[in-house]
Amino acid sequence: MTGHVREGSARTGHLGLCTDLYEVRMVESYLRRGMTAPATFSLFVRPSARRPWLVAVGIERALEVIEAFTFGPEELAELERLGVDRGVRDRLADFEMRGEVWAVEEGTVVLGREPILEVTAPLPIAQLLETAIMNVVQFPMLVATKAARCALAAGGRQLADFGFRRAHGLETGVEAALAAYVGGGFATSNVEAGRRYGVPVTGTMAHSYVQAFTDEREAFRSFVSDHPDQSVLLVDTYDTLEGVRRTIEICQELGIEPKGVRLDSGDLGELAVEARGLLDEAGFGDSIVLASGGLDEYALHELVSGGAPIDGFGVGTALTVSEDHPGLDIVYKLVEYADRPVAKFSGTKSTLPGPKQVSRPEEGITGDVLDRRDTEGPGTALLAPVWRDGRRLGEAFDQEVVRSRVHEQLEALPPAWQTPPYPDAPPLPAVGTALEHLTDEVRRAAPDGGADP
Amino acid sequence: MTGHVREGSARTGHLGLCTDLYEVRMVESYLRRGMTAPATFSLFVRPSARRPWLVAVGIERALEVIEAFTFGPEELAELERLGVDRGVRDRLADFEMRGEVWAVEEGTVVLGREPILEVTAPLPIAQLLETAIMNVVQFPMLVATKAARCALAAGGRQLADFGFRRAHGLETGVEAALAAYVGGGFATSNVEAGRRYGVPVTGTMAHSYVQAFTDEREAFRSFVSDHPDQSVLLVDTYDTLEGVRRTIEICQELGIEPKGVRLDSGDLGELAVEARGLLDEAGFGDSIVLASGGLDEYALHELVSGGAPIDGFGVGTALTVSEDHPGLDIVYKLVEYADRPVAKFSGTKSTLPGPKQVSRPEEGITGDVLDRRDTEGPGTALLAPVWRDGRRLGEAFDQEVVRSRVHEQLEALPPAWQTPPYPDAPPLPAVGTALEHLTDEVRRAAPDGGADP
Repeated sequence: MTGHVREGSARTGHLGLCTDLYEVRMVESYLRRGMTAPATFSLFVRPSARRPWLVAVGIERALEVIEAFTFGPEELAELERLGVDRGVRDRLADFEMRGEVWAVEEGTVVLGREPILEVTAPLPIAQLLETAIMNVVQFPMLVATKAARCALAAGGRQLADFGFRRAHGLETGVEAALAAYVGGGFATSNVEAGRRYGVPVTGTMAHSYVQAFTDEREAFRSFVSDHPDQSVLLVDTYDTLEGVRRTIEICQELGIEPKGVRLDSGDLGELAVEARGLLDEAGFGDSIVLASGGLDEYALHELVSGGAPIDGFGVGTALTVSEDHPGLDIVYKLVEYADRPVAKFSGTKSTLPGPKQVSRPEEGITGDVLDRRDTEGPGTALLAPVWRDGRRLGEAFDQEVVRSRVHEQLEALPPAWQTPPYPDAPPLPAVGTALEHLTDEVRRAAPDGGADP
Repeated sequence: MTGHVREGSARTGHLGLCTDLYEVRMVESYLRRGMTAPATFSLFVRPSARRPWLVAVGIERALEVIEAFTFGPEELAELERLGVDRGVRDRLADFEMRGEVWAVEEGTVVLGREPILEVTAPLPIAQLLETAIMNVVQFPMLVATKAARCALAAGGRQLADFGFRRAHGLETGVEAALAAYVGGGFATSNVEAGRRYGVPVTGTMAHSYVQAFTDEREAFRSFVSDHPDQSVLLVDTYDTLEGVRRTIEICQELGIEPKGVRLDSGDLGELAVEARGLLDEAGFGDSIVLASGGLDEYALHELVSGGAPIDGFGVGTALTVSEDHPGLDIVYKLVEYADRPVAKFSGTKSTLPGPKQVSRPEEGITGDVLDRRDTEGPGTALLAPVWRDGRRLGEAFDQEVVRSRVHEQLEALPPAWQTPPYPDAPPLPAVGTALEHLTDEVRRAAPDGGADP
């Protein structure tokens, strides 16, 4: 997957302008003042009941951004146009990531507040990377987390991503298909995601196919004849149960067991029971019933827990744009500069100082402890170096490995977190003693006495 | 802007796989059966109170998709892997858009149900383009519409897009900045959008800048010295009003009038009044007050209608991912095949048959009439041919022209549609007599008697 970010997102081959102008303004000031000591920024999601737990992916993307974050002639000309002076431009022309990145393993299930990734580098470098790193981690996490919720709600039934058409861009649709697969999806409708990432691709027919024929029967007969092995018929163009009956008639005529039917509107639970009954009655016990149409994890859970005889679900918009929560509250916060831990103490947006580590004991995520990085915790340390001295460490991204890791971690979640209703308040990691002490120290030393100005 | 889609979204240079597998399955069947007569598909948004009106953009993108929708060796190999037979692959190897596209002018404000674009082409071609056309029109419309709502709510105050970090991809963030600008934004934080599209770029400082110094005063002094012309200081790192006082003190020391202050948390309306008072008292009447932090059109409207002395707003996630409605219910429906108008009559998802035209009388959008394309309406015809015989017609996209068009059209909207509370029910175009008759005919001729199976 290396090279993805460069090819897919930078038309000049340099990502240096994939940033916000204020990053540039700050960096100008840092460079002018020689403020180039190491800074650590911590990337995490603020706790939110909308996503009590999150599937952390996008680490590889962040490393790709770091590699491609360079300034070519066009970028430098644009900075000149923006009034960035020659001295600063010359420094940016040599921009190169120096320092170190720690991150959780791709596919780790984390809580809000827990760092996904920490960058330690000269302040101007670490600062300038902020926007792009947030961007490329946020999106795959968003979709993988939503897919995981849907997969758990589907209770082992197959989950397909149908959302390419509503993704925020073509490239984004392909990336969404990958993230949905990794998060627990079984397949995608997106053909390019199959070619590029080997995600299994699935698809049957649309209403337009049925309507292109003058008669539903003729449409079904044609499709089954042309695709006997993929004969999942969309049965709701006119009347759903009539469509199921026609499926049966035509397959009986042709001497084929239909692969199945897809229900796309109406009361899916009720229709599934009736469709199942008709298919079974006809001796088509192996034909499957698929459901789609405005589904999300809540609808899936209701159908599955209500015992609807549905074998697989297609989820579109809700999954691909994470419709109920399309932007994670992800932040990239300065936690240390020049060996001075820093924090922010304002109520809802407070941060904790210093580089960190998360320890997960054997009991799992409910026992997570967030502490200073240099403290030994009670279990497995979740963060490890993934980049050092200009070199990536560890394994390359493999979607099958990551998908299995996600699957295992989801299985280990407390059952009450797995399906609706989810916890009202987001679970938080415990804060370790060393971090607590450091926070107190920083609070006392804060220029304005911290929260009490 | 030509070439955007190819460069930005297809890593092989061919977009042919940017589709759903079911499109391919249907096309296999059409080709096998010689179903290559002209089909018309109509792209529109289903009426929704969540977006009573919409800014139609993305037409140019759709034409770019049409141009780049080709199959190279990698695409054809993938189709082979998916079991598509040689005959079909050979036809797709020669895939070329033949036919015609009608569309509204880029930047037209439309209602739900009104076609944005209609493709008439041999059925397999028009079908295969479905997913990609929907995708590339949906996203810019989504953001331009949200930006228009925010711009109207801002009531003439400046609106900047701050959402790059939460966009669904880097390339998507750049496109969002363009769409937000066209929809009514004034500037973006996104540096690449400045380079690529000439969108004005804006930005000041982040909390990390303040925290990199041991003291807020020192941070402010440094920033003002380094950027006297861009000295908008972020004042809420510790205590907002204390931050405003410090801004004043430091600027007085340095003999500079600050450009302004940015409030990013707390009760923005109240803080703006106090900040304004302090600045005025200090004789800094030209210094501006900017506000940001979780804003959307509802918050903007409340602040503006409450008289908050805020000169400009930064809107991030809410705008860039259209947070309250991140996926428009956009559809691409078959309305005619081989001179036979078709429609779907099921309740909420019904469609109207045949190619269409929208007439807008002098009174404006409230008088819109949706009718058959060949019928003369009571006003300006909104749709015109934009592609014919393999050639684009009309002007190339120019963001300044489109932006002005959007602006004029927004000004002409009924005041009750412009700001919250928006209409409870989405306004609909009237249906013209000819279309009504056609619909009745099609309903009578429907294979299942339409809605009454």
